Amino acid sequence: MHSFPTRLLSGYRTFMAGVYRNRNEQYRELAASGQKPTTMVIACCDSRAAPETIFDCGPGELFVLRNVANLVPPYAPDGGQHGTSAAIEFAVKGLGITDVVIMGHGRCGGIHAALTSPDPLDEGDFIGKWMSLLGPVAEEVSRYSFLTTAERQTLLERHSIRNSIANLRTFPYVRALEAQGALKVHGAWFDISTGELWVMDSESGDFTRPSPEPEDRSLVHDHET
Amino acid sequence: MHSFPTRLLSGYRTFMAGVYRNRNEQYRELAASGQKPTTMVIACCDSRAAPETIFDCGPGELFVLRNVANLVPPYAPDGGQHGTSAAIEFAVKGLGITDVVIMGHGRCGGIHAALTSPDPLDEGDFIGKWMSLLGPVAEEVSRYSFLTTAERQTLLERHSIRNSIANLRTFPYVRALEAQGALKVHGAWFDISTGELWVMDSESGDFTRPSPEPEDRSLVHDHET
Amino acid sequence: MHSFPTRLLSGYRTFMAGVYRNRNEQYRELAASGQKPTTMVIACCDSRAAPETIFDCGPGELFVLRNVANLVPPYAPDGGQHGTSAAIEFAVKGLGITDVVIMGHGRCGGIHAALTSPDPLDEGDFIGKWMSLLGPVAEEVSRYSFLTTAERQTLLERHSIRNSIANLRTFPYVRALEAQGALKVHGAWFDISTGELWVMDSESGDFTRPSPEPEDRSLVHDHET
Amino acid sequence: MHSFPTRLLSGYRTFMAGVYRNRNEQYRELAASGQKPTTMVIACCDSRAAPETIFDCGPGELFVLRNVANLVPPYAPDGGQHGTSAAIEFAVKGLGITDVVIMGHGRCGGIHAALTSPDPLDEGDFIGKWMSLLGPVAEEVSRYSFLTTAERQTLLERHSIRNSIANLRTFPYVRALEAQGALKVHGAWFDISTGELWVMDSESGDFTRPSPEPEDRSLVHDHET
Repeated sequence: MHSFPTRLLSGYRTFMAGVYRNRNEQYRELAASGQKPTTMVIACCDSRAAPETIFDCGPGELFVLRNVANLVPPYAPDGGQHGTSAAIEFAVKGLGITDVVIMGHGRCGGIHAALTSPDPLDEGDFIGKWMSLLGPVAEEVSRYSFLTTAERQTLLERHSIRNSIANLRTFPYVRALEAQGALKVHGAWFDISTGELWVMDSESGDFTRPSPEPEDRSLVHDHET
Repeated sequence: MHSFPTRLLSGYRTFMAGVYRNRNEQYRELAASGQKPTTMVIACCDSRAAPETIFDCGPGELFVLRNVANLVPPYAPDGGQHGTSAAIEFAVKGLGITDVVIMGHGRCGGIHAALTSPDPLDEGDFIGKWMSLLGPVAEEVSRYSFLTTAERQTLLERHSIRNSIANLRTFPYVRALEAQGALKVHGAWFDISTGELWVMDSESGDFTRPSPEPEDRSLVHDHET
Repeated sequence: MHSFPTRLLSGYRTFMAGVYRNRNEQYRELAASGQKPTTMVIACCDSRAAPETIFDCGPGELFVLRNVANLVPPYAPDGGQHGTSAAIEFAVKGLGITDVVIMGHGRCGGIHAALTSPDPLDEGDFIGKWMSLLGPVAEEVSRYSFLTTAERQTLLERHSIRNSIANLRTFPYVRALEAQGALKVHGAWFDISTGELWVMDSESGDFTRPSPEPEDRSLVHDHET
Repeated sequence: MHSFPTRLLSGYRTFMAGVYRNRNEQYRELAASGQKPTTMVIACCDSRAAPETIFDCGPGELFVLRNVANLVPPYAPDGGQHGTSAAIEFAVKGLGITDVVIMGHGRCGGIHAALTSPDPLDEGDFIGKWMSLLGPVAEEVSRYSFLTTAERQTLLERHSIRNSIANLRTFPYVRALEAQGALKVHGAWFDISTGELWVMDSESGDFTRPSPEPEDRSLVHDHET
């Protein structure tokens, strides 16, 4: 029998001695009364962009779906086993989530594959099909010849967030709850290199950095907290 | 325009002042050279069981897929847009992951829905279909009348991990890499209430707590009673 | 004449030089005034699960019945020589016990025999009959094919505790005293490997680990990682 | 829901911080490889006479049956659910025990009930029947008018040990293994007040104290260890 990854076991011990120790009553309460998160985050599998880390969220705060490139398919009740759609249904209808955040990020491998032809990953059975949820946009952006490679990448990452939001709105209950003001849908994009979070303007679809806060200035100090 | 959730913005500022500030070189390096995680975790969307928290992992360490009930469908290259399969393909073929961990957890809402009939979530279009990846097991376990409700729940959670592992092995490259010793597949189950991590024995399929480590012993008082 | 086991004689000397020497007044008092334990433990004969060891109890504290698999037969005043029933009667009517604990444990050989067919122990005259106190449950659980061998074993161990409690309640005075609040019946399960004690919820019949106590928290390091 | 006895929970914590902590590898090994005790002790339920305490034995050493007055019924394969016989069968045939110790003790409540007429416990359904395993001896000893009450009690306690040994030898495999020299049967009697252990001479049936050992002298010292 092979053994469990030692890095995970040592990390788990740190969790137990730290986060769990400090919050064990909260964990017990969350177990007893059930989760009641108000926010769902649809994010990428990428190892550099965990929502709980970026938003500093603890147990019970975020209901998190992660797939390649944070894609949402359009509503298609065709009897298929749609994992992303099941998670959305669970969050919105089961948990009564009030905010859904689609969070993309820079240097996304799935977006890179969609822009690159031929891409080594094209040989596979699933990635190409999955990224085809972006529709003809990927191919079109790949032909934007006056942009740099990095610009095309970032733009498709951001378009992809808008595309997921549009698909999310094809779910009847999402649309209905949004109309009632009971559900809000947001977009965000995380720059792995700089740590910047860019937030989508819900009307224009543009991405901007939130205005700076007093806390941000503390970043220039040298001393450790 | 509605505004981005304030809890997430304040959490993000904490991240920037803490994790990012302390690790900004690592983030820049990870952005420049690309992610090279060696471990993929397939976990549930549940807000109480984030892999990065439980395993105390930082940027670049875990490639994380999260769906309802951490299910893996069997290999089915039928042209459909299979998000979970795309993530597995990306991790195994694209990133050369060496360890895949299926991590389930207690009080799983998806498993609960699969065991409950009728469940309020049955009315939806996707959750029931998604949970049908468990096959007839859920219905069978729901008839194990000598078990308590909680026992049936835990057992199906654990069976589901074994089921995901079995389905993972229907992917030809997973099977091939495992045979070569280049890929290992693990199961784990997290108890939200107690914080306990149970690890699956790769041969018997049983779940046990990892044996204590030197660090753990130091936790105990030195004097004898 | 053969001699008394030397291991027991040397152990006895350790007892005299330690426990007895430190507590000889208590022993004399207990002998003079009689035992007045408030707790009865019904446990298994297993050499790895002595109640006095696990509960760190000294002389006079626990009235302990031990048989194979900690079984309690239903109340059957048929004139037979029922040892377990006699001990229950002695504890509840003679000693006025206020708490009865049925304590099962992992890897129980009696439960294993009940689940295994044919089992080498089936050839005997008594074990099979004795384990038949579990009724048809053992055979049913042995057919729970989606569980692993170890899961079936643990579940039958736990069911057996619930079964013993149900049988205990067929004794008229147990039922009457419980109704008056003068007697409480508890279930517990001991994991030989990890040393964990699981306590039964008296309403649901589920087994959980007791929540941590102040003492336990002190076991963890003070600094954060 | 009522809660588990707090005395047992605090004792359990002491066990975990002491015995289990020091022996956790032994517990894990005992769980993995199974118990292999060489000695069975048949003792009384009395709270003042736990075999593990008196013989200072740890996990895996003693297979312990406890019933009221440490009685053994004669071999009676009549299809009844005989708990004591099942434990003997398990120990001798299942575990291959090499030594069986019948351990009685002073101030035994079961013996007291058998000698007293009418005894309050006579009203019950089971104790009188159970003590009838002593046969007509109890009634006869109760008429030994030239003895004191305490003498009659001690004598019946010791006779009862001899009686249990005689009944034990009605089990065919016990008799056969004894004849081969593969099993030895012993008697012992513990004086709760003085802590003295009296060992039965296997030929005469008399009880004597084992010769003193160097360690015993340490009992006269005043200082505590």
